[in-house]
Amino acid sequence: MFKKILVANRGEIALRIMQTCREMGISTVAVYSTVDAESIHVKYADEAVCIGPALSRESYLNIPRIIAAAEVTNADAIHPGYGFLAENADFAEVCASANIKFIGPTAKMINQMGDKNTAKSTMIAAGVPVVPGSPGLVTDLKQAIETAKKTGYPVIIKPTAGGGGKGMRVVTEESQLEKALNTARSEAEQAFGNSGVYIEKYLENPRHVEIQILSDQHGNTIHLGERDCTVQRRHQKLIEETPSPAVDDALRKKMGDAAVAAARAINYEGAGTIEFLLDKHRDFYFMEMNTRIQVEHPVTEERYDVDIVREQIEIAAGESIENRQFTPKGHSIECRINAEDPEHMFRPSPGQLQVFHTPGGHGVRVDSHAYASYVVPSNYDSMIAKLIVTAHTRDEAIARMSRALDEFIVVGVKTTIPFHKQVMHAPVFQSGDFDTSFLDTFRFEKK
Amino acid sequence: MFKKILVANRGEIALRIMQTCREMGISTVAVYSTVDAESIHVKYADEAVCIGPALSRESYLNIPRIIAAAEVTNADAIHPGYGFLAENADFAEVCASANIKFIGPTAKMINQMGDKNTAKSTMIAAGVPVVPGSPGLVTDLKQAIETAKKTGYPVIIKPTAGGGGKGMRVVTEESQLEKALNTARSEAEQAFGNSGVYIEKYLENPRHVEIQILSDQHGNTIHLGERDCTVQRRHQKLIEETPSPAVDDALRKKMGDAAVAAARAINYEGAGTIEFLLDKHRDFYFMEMNTRIQVEHPVTEERYDVDIVREQIEIAAGESIENRQFTPKGHSIECRINAEDPEHMFRPSPGQLQVFHTPGGHGVRVDSHAYASYVVPSNYDSMIAKLIVTAHTRDEAIARMSRALDEFIVVGVKTTIPFHKQVMHAPVFQSGDFDTSFLDTFRFEKK
Repeated sequence: MFKKILVANRGEIALRIMQTCREMGISTVAVYSTVDAESIHVKYADEAVCIGPALSRESYLNIPRIIAAAEVTNADAIHPGYGFLAENADFAEVCASANIKFIGPTAKMINQMGDKNTAKSTMIAAGVPVVPGSPGLVTDLKQAIETAKKTGYPVIIKPTAGGGGKGMRVVTEESQLEKALNTARSEAEQAFGNSGVYIEKYLENPRHVEIQILSDQHGNTIHLGERDCTVQRRHQKLIEETPSPAVDDALRKKMGDAAVAAARAINYEGAGTIEFLLDKHRDFYFMEMNTRIQVEHPVTEERYDVDIVREQIEIAAGESIENRQFTPKGHSIECRINAEDPEHMFRPSPGQLQVFHTPGGHGVRVDSHAYASYVVPSNYDSMIAKLIVTAHTRDEAIARMSRALDEFIVVGVKTTIPFHKQVMHAPVFQSGDFDTSFLDTFRFEKK
Repeated sequence: MFKKILVANRGEIALRIMQTCREMGISTVAVYSTVDAESIHVKYADEAVCIGPALSRESYLNIPRIIAAAEVTNADAIHPGYGFLAENADFAEVCASANIKFIGPTAKMINQMGDKNTAKSTMIAAGVPVVPGSPGLVTDLKQAIETAKKTGYPVIIKPTAGGGGKGMRVVTEESQLEKALNTARSEAEQAFGNSGVYIEKYLENPRHVEIQILSDQHGNTIHLGERDCTVQRRHQKLIEETPSPAVDDALRKKMGDAAVAAARAINYEGAGTIEFLLDKHRDFYFMEMNTRIQVEHPVTEERYDVDIVREQIEIAAGESIENRQFTPKGHSIECRINAEDPEHMFRPSPGQLQVFHTPGGHGVRVDSHAYASYVVPSNYDSMIAKLIVTAHTRDEAIARMSRALDEFIVVGVKTTIPFHKQVMHAPVFQSGDFDTSFLDTFRFEKK
């Protein structure tokens, strides 16, 4: 087992990873930018190395400095968390050549899943359902028109690199296709330095359902059920839950089998998530694979009583998961508490926390690096806490989330807490019958 | 079901009870003393009534004002929490005559268990093992000498009223008996207005193991296993866990059956705890029954996945527990985080909290009403949080508690956190093989 792990991240996930390291008796090294010097993850770590100024590319994205920090502190492994360098194949490669274990898949696996068009071809070969569309990149208008005709409108043009909605265009009729194709390509070129795009049938109002998988170095892959992440605002997940109200045992088995096949297709190693779109006909389509831990991993941890970070570390150390047994129980929901103003289009609300009281009681978990007097910096993502509740049923979990949100007091910055409260009371959310368009029509009531 | 519950308490337990009320859709009324006006339990409640100044007997012990608050707000039930009026038979009686449901047993049941000598006789009649001793109160020296001879020295003289160690005397030989008897009686008279004492064999270095029971109004009683509360300082519990390292399935069944018999003997109603002393020979003896929720109830909630406050409320509303099924899983430990200075004999350390960061992650629960800027008053008990962890095994739970304590940051007052950290690392605690004398020899290292 590793003796010392450097955590190449910040905020709640850095703290979360160090919690498990400490339970396992593994020393921890924090890295931090100057603006994070007072962060809990820095205080909690056994050692801490400042790796640069606030700007991410000079600190949390600065590969040479992070490797240097690992070498100076003699860390034998690096956990990348999520975001930043977590899906950066170069980083995984550099770790490998520096003889430091990257806790996650190899550079090759990251690349295989990072390029979306390659990933799609791999999935087709593995028999995993994908959204119908162009067989490869679309290079000219004629090809685009033919593909769109075959799949039927609406279609979506997607960049093969990057993510987060940039360079995507939905096209509802042929006359719009030329302009959309050109815009998408130039946006993709600008954002990701890669103008490659492909075309897919645009699924109207699907649900976002993803499967958590674990794969060890000995060829064993298991899945830990699904997470429903359908409540999104502009492709940003806000609420996640497991089980999905739209998935029954039979569908879970089908999706789980597909996810396991997807991971096996690339001889995957580590924890990963296969994201699917699920349509009204209960057909599901591979969207992408995240080759890292997800923000929303705690709902799976609570329902399956598993520490996914521990699994990641044990897998990276070469342990087998062959005899792992997980029994799901209850219903878990996570709300992301962001320093954002729901009254003003969720614009970021950085600043100093004056009051910060987190909820407790049976079935409530709070993962947070924040505390009163902490200054939420404007440099990074705005999440200040994850509130996770678990109860016997979905209805009970919603009631529990609702009372926990009431108890969560933050003064000093605007947060998504009032938004989540209203969602918990919304009949559509309570019914479980909604899709990714839910928030388009949801009206947040200013009070 | 009740529409509105008044919570006649403060601090974390007031908040804890209101959490469950809110999940059940029941409105809540807080009562508070002037010093608690800024407390979270006041803000969290749907309504709040100030019932007097800081001094307990003028506020939280002031029965007429609490009843008036319930009547003014039209509450149909009162939850007393623990401490204050929770085991006050008069209060239960007054509630009943005001037609407000007291969530707990009747005045009669409280009285039956409140007088220790009566309780002991009841237990003997019910076949529950009790510590050998005088058949009733000891009124003269001759009787005392005879009893002590029969049970063998050492013996302990105990007052029939009250608790907390006052009026108790351990006697190791006959020559000390007369003086001890006189002192005990006058102390008991002074402290409780009742000079009645009885004599018991003094069990040297037992463990404190208690059984949680639930009894409904229809004659059903079940138990939810044991809690081991052996880590005590001057009869004050500091750390509690379940299961007990000293109890196996066979012993759990015997103790559980005895606890159920004890509750049935008085036709008990509500949640209750039968406290036993467990000696080296695995013999156990009834000590007392607590006719209320305990501070340490969360460890049972986590291991048995049950909301005990909800059970209390449902039982009070007349629901049957006949079909309740609870499956224990894992190991839970609670550490009481008190504003006390372990470097100076645990003297209270009231004051304003400057930093307050509570731990999170898988298997961690924090019940607390505290937050940075909150002023811990000197008027009430010093507990500011309960830290509860759950894991698959005792060793894992200790590792989890240890890392969670490391993450718990309190600045502004001294706390028991450094003490708990050292206990978690102590080989004797880790071995599970200790008794109530553990802390007498435990050396807290100042740092």
